[in-house]
Amino acid sequence: MAMIKLYHAPRTRSIRILWLLEELGLPYQLATVAFRPPRHSFEQDTPAGKFPVIEDDGLVMFESGAILEYLIEKYGKGLLAPAAGSPERGPYLQWIHFAEATAMPPVNDITRHTLLLPEAERIPKVAEDARVRATNVLNVVERALAGKDYLVGHELSGADIMMGYFLMAARMLGVVGSAHANVGAYWERLAARPPLQKALSTH
Amino acid sequence: MAMIKLYHAPRTRSIRILWLLEELGLPYQLATVAFRPPRHSFEQDTPAGKFPVIEDDGLVMFESGAILEYLIEKYGKGLLAPAAGSPERGPYLQWIHFAEATAMPPVNDITRHTLLLPEAERIPKVAEDARVRATNVLNVVERALAGKDYLVGHELSGADIMMGYFLMAARMLGVVGSAHANVGAYWERLAARPPLQKALSTH
Repeated sequence: MAMIKLYHAPRTRSIRILWLLEELGLPYQLATVAFRPPRHSFEQDTPAGKFPVIEDDGLVMFESGAILEYLIEKYGKGLLAPAAGSPERGPYLQWIHFAEATAMPPVNDITRHTLLLPEAERIPKVAEDARVRATNVLNVVERALAGKDYLVGHELSGADIMMGYFLMAARMLGVVGSAHANVGAYWERLAARPPLQKALSTH
Repeated sequence: MAMIKLYHAPRTRSIRILWLLEELGLPYQLATVAFRPPRHSFEQDTPAGKFPVIEDDGLVMFESGAILEYLIEKYGKGLLAPAAGSPERGPYLQWIHFAEATAMPPVNDITRHTLLLPEAERIPKVAEDARVRATNVLNVVERALAGKDYLVGHELSGADIMMGYFLMAARMLGVVGSAHANVGAYWERLAARPPLQKALSTH
């Protein structure tokens, strides 16, 4: 099989794919590209203007959630995802989508309006409002993790890899609080994994 | 099989699932719930505080992209999705995720800051900025549709149902322009389908 190529920049969503590739022990080629603080969107120096992008057997593909589902389906050998038709399949898909569609937008707003935009263009009210929405998300995840080590089933799945990146960002932005004890313990569980440590230390 | 229950409000993302159920000819029970202009998030009167939510055989599930993948996988009988392992599988997953993770956030920003928030809390600069990002999204979709009737393969797929809702919203907000001829023709193609017409006219 041709080696998977990953366009990566530290601290971006490409961490998810790097972490996944390490969990699955797949060979890959890394194209590290400098991150540009974007003014709007699609401004990165990758084939899709975003992170992450992969190339796999001639296919160029973007969207971290899609790449994750695709790689697990194609190369996962049953790891990291409940089988189609199993009771955990719906929750698995739910948390994968939730992590990007619902959890990340407030994090993006906070990041843009406290860090990425030129100072004159930052709007404090937007970041403040996004903090409420990010906290709402964390409250949902906190409840979902009650009595559980992982979001789905008893083992790490792709859903945790998707959510892990959100938590990393939310922690960095100071949104994870004392009301989120399950989330805190869950994060420690994820952070202890060598594949995530490898992904975080790759530049 | 127990009948699928869908929590629905007109003009929300639950249109996607209604459209999907109609395309697949599945029996369903509709719980129509009044939409509340949200101040932040998770404020709707459904089991997840959002639209859509489904109940299926005791499973309560949210996130439109996840519900769509789940229902197609479980009840689609090979319709509306390329098989796992086929060359179209990656693009199918990509556009499903793109529609919500990348395309919808600017639409959400425009909607909140021109329509949903109390007037005193709307920030014109946020809507203006989001219009640039929404146009960037439409430019990507415009290029993806060059020479094609649907996003993936030669037939309607779940990716079109996901994108269709974005286009509906983007058109309503006046973001689709004369630079988007492929998008315009694609929308007409989708809008001609009785299952979408049924979904749009259900209250």
